[in-house]
Amino acid sequence: MKSYFRPEIDAMAGYVPGEQPKMADLVKLNTNENPFPPSPEVEKVLRAFDCSRLRRYPDPMADALRDAFASRWGVSRANVIAGNGSDDLLTMIFRAFSSPDRPVAVLDPSYSLYQELAAMQGAPVIRIGLEPRTFALPADLLEQAAPANLLMIVRPNAPTGTLFPRETVKGICENFDGIVVIDEAYADFAPDNCVDFARELPNVIVIRTFSKSYSMAGIRLGYGIAAEEIITGLMKLKDSYNLDMLTQTAGLAAFRDEKYFTARRNEVVSMREALAGELRKRNFFVADSASNFLFVSPPGGDARRVFDELRRRAVIVRYFSAPVTAAYLRITVGTPAENARLLAAIDEIFS
Amino acid sequence: MKSYFRPEIDAMAGYVPGEQPKMADLVKLNTNENPFPPSPEVEKVLRAFDCSRLRRYPDPMADALRDAFASRWGVSRANVIAGNGSDDLLTMIFRAFSSPDRPVAVLDPSYSLYQELAAMQGAPVIRIGLEPRTFALPADLLEQAAPANLLMIVRPNAPTGTLFPRETVKGICENFDGIVVIDEAYADFAPDNCVDFARELPNVIVIRTFSKSYSMAGIRLGYGIAAEEIITGLMKLKDSYNLDMLTQTAGLAAFRDEKYFTARRNEVVSMREALAGELRKRNFFVADSASNFLFVSPPGGDARRVFDELRRRAVIVRYFSAPVTAAYLRITVGTPAENARLLAAIDEIFS
Repeated sequence: MKSYFRPEIDAMAGYVPGEQPKMADLVKLNTNENPFPPSPEVEKVLRAFDCSRLRRYPDPMADALRDAFASRWGVSRANVIAGNGSDDLLTMIFRAFSSPDRPVAVLDPSYSLYQELAAMQGAPVIRIGLEPRTFALPADLLEQAAPANLLMIVRPNAPTGTLFPRETVKGICENFDGIVVIDEAYADFAPDNCVDFARELPNVIVIRTFSKSYSMAGIRLGYGIAAEEIITGLMKLKDSYNLDMLTQTAGLAAFRDEKYFTARRNEVVSMREALAGELRKRNFFVADSASNFLFVSPPGGDARRVFDELRRRAVIVRYFSAPVTAAYLRITVGTPAENARLLAAIDEIFS
Repeated sequence: MKSYFRPEIDAMAGYVPGEQPKMADLVKLNTNENPFPPSPEVEKVLRAFDCSRLRRYPDPMADALRDAFASRWGVSRANVIAGNGSDDLLTMIFRAFSSPDRPVAVLDPSYSLYQELAAMQGAPVIRIGLEPRTFALPADLLEQAAPANLLMIVRPNAPTGTLFPRETVKGICENFDGIVVIDEAYADFAPDNCVDFARELPNVIVIRTFSKSYSMAGIRLGYGIAAEEIITGLMKLKDSYNLDMLTQTAGLAAFRDEKYFTARRNEVVSMREALAGELRKRNFFVADSASNFLFVSPPGGDARRVFDELRRRAVIVRYFSAPVTAAYLRITVGTPAENARLLAAIDEIFS
């Protein structure tokens, strides 16, 4: 049958959902989920929720959430947009700022979804390679990115976990003629962040998610901070009621429980450093991580083999086969028990 | 400051959220919400939900829901896509099938969101006027729609509530060279539906929502049924994890409670007929409704005045000021008490 799809869509490969193996006694360290449950306040508000309210539409603007985010970051409600996960925000951003004559610049390696979002828009992609091994930004980044209308920076970067210097990123934001998105999905695990760039510069959008540091990947909640003009434009592309009532309620409860959040974040950071130390003892290269995962290269560099051997032992980590990442594994920081299982499996593989 | 937005986005008017008045003792009959709460099964599964699961990503494909929908409608999982409300599905559909050289045909009057979705894509809109007063499809619909790649039909139609004959719609689907979307948001309140067209024809997408007949506007859940080739293409445009765990869980519980669903649906239909009778007794023109709302014209035809007078009495209905709808009000069927308040207010206005 004739296809009525736009040719850009027909040209795309189909969606491949993330691996959800159904093994017994699995150690799942492949999708950067948090080892801890969400705040107990989430359970409290869900248990108390009056389900008869569900017959009504939710607040289309998610004002209670936006006010909470604005207050935390010293901006106003008009500087905040909430999304059904940060995926929803990324979709709005690519629809707003990319097109066949508005290219997108992405770092390599970085979050691979950006290239798919550009493909949906028929937007050309400029891939800017990071420095080998250090994963630093190249000195000529601005020259390379110049033809783009949209520049995507993940900080801390994924899958490398590394932190680009704040001042370097600020200089890029100030000098790039287009929109810079700083995807701070992992920034809560880092020593600093760039929210102030979004507060001060007219072309910067910082996006955040509840999937990692708030242990709520299952709830789908993210938000973006930017100049009011940018938020107003993105709102035009938002599905009217993009955030359901339960997500708004549970997200607010988790966000307000700062004490639980801080304690669990600190624990993940400690466990990350401990795990990095153990892997270095075993002669792994471990990139300095400011996130909740480690990007490592096993002794000998045959990451594919180690990935397979770990999998045989029901320990699932992430392997990206592209040339720049083929010598590495991305390993989510798990619970102490999970990390111990990982290390035991590695010891067995290398014994 | 220079705008980096695509010009199509800059040209759009900003989003205007639906009216959520904060009056005391309000009778809210303006957004076609269901007067009944959702199935008690929803509360049960939410109370029992293990919140520690929220740290994980939800099923990206919503397979449990898709299997339930597929089984109900006699199709396979590959024929079903689930969305964060039917808005999410409409967004995917417009991104897939409309563009500056792929116009969209819409009926007039019909659901106004379609024109906004076309504007985001820079797609031209062909407006096909319904017959005055009967709101029937024009005989030359196929000729008018011919330049379009996407034809949107709401059945029962909104805001008129009327039901286009099944055989007429089928002939349109069979003869239109493009994708036909049949938006069945209100079809559960109608004597028949068109899901079989999506099962039998390669170019038809039927979409459904939990917002109306399942009393779950607050949960954001919709789904689409179509040929496998269409579903596969739409999946490429879907946000990876578009449906959170709680929506998947609550939606499935509501969908399985067929007994509750049928009982409440039948009650709404009875109340609709009773309310239509009362309004006709008061010399209102009432279009034959197959949905959970009535499209009415007050005696004298000054709908705007009646809207304002009702509002003064804390009864909120919907008024669309465009020329073809300016003599009408759209009134959601409420609880018996709400409908009585509406009628009392009308009696006062016309006394």
